Amino acid sequence: MSFRDEAIAANDAYARSFPRAERTAPPTRRVAVLACMDARLRPEEALGLALGEAHVIRNAGGRATGDAVRSLMLSSAVLGTREAVVIHHTDCGLLGATDEELRSIVSEATGEDASTVDFLAFEDADRTLAADVETIVSDPRLPFTEVTGFIFDVETGALREARSV
Amino acid sequence: MSFRDEAIAANDAYARSFPRAERTAPPTRRVAVLACMDARLRPEEALGLALGEAHVIRNAGGRATGDAVRSLMLSSAVLGTREAVVIHHTDCGLLGATDEELRSIVSEATGEDASTVDFLAFEDADRTLAADVETIVSDPRLPFTEVTGFIFDVETGALREARSV
Repeated sequence: MSFRDEAIAANDAYARSFPRAERTAPPTRRVAVLACMDARLRPEEALGLALGEAHVIRNAGGRATGDAVRSLMLSSAVLGTREAVVIHHTDCGLLGATDEELRSIVSEATGEDASTVDFLAFEDADRTLAADVETIVSDPRLPFTEVTGFIFDVETGALREARSV
Repeated sequence: MSFRDEAIAANDAYARSFPRAERTAPPTRRVAVLACMDARLRPEEALGLALGEAHVIRNAGGRATGDAVRSLMLSSAVLGTREAVVIHHTDCGLLGATDEELRSIVSEATGEDASTVDFLAFEDADRTLAADVETIVSDPRLPFTEVTGFIFDVETGALREARSV
């Protein structure tokens, strides 16, 4: 059975116990989270967020890319979120690899040219987190009143505050 | 109390009951999910995914943007995922608005120029989902063996399969 088939069966059970309520698109807690795609991280659970309370934007690294900024603009300026949280984490799959190494791995795995891709690899999670928080704080199109950066420990589930503005 | 302070308190409780186990970066179920940032959608719960099983990439609309493709390359070619799932949903905050309207809203809310931003607004969730599935299937740098598209119903929690390749 493929994952797709199992997911359809699992969703039947999920929908039967889904908490019905009137919910609209603007998040009720007025929070936007930007986090890594890592499988060991559940941003909503780690932050104690209930269904409907926060937007969650995720990509490789939890980086404040142009596409993340597009999403954060829609979240804050259009849908009214006011606090942003950025979560990077320990033992990141990107950590320690260079962009050049990642390009080689992708080319070898697929036989395709990945030489123009910027994978946004990084070496120091705290420094990269501070830079991504700064990208959000310094963009005037993102009207957040508070931006907090956390490092999530994938072994313990604990968040360590690393950068707040 | 700001959300940040509440989140720190909530995380203390989360970390105390965090299921300790040896987990490494490659997702054990070899699944990558691309979904919308919408606050009413919990991709892992809707698909029955446990901690550590899948990468989760999210942005406004759940669109297969260049940054989502960057993340999916790292997920599949570097970290070994083999099935991809794309989730768009009903009652999307982007649905029905044009990019021009979204630019005006952001400019009015922030006083800043947003005229060069492509917000990737769309009018038909099924059509956009099919296009995003096609973007992933047709990119040879993404070695997925199966790509499934679902529309998530934010009122019922049910997934409707809309496009599989």
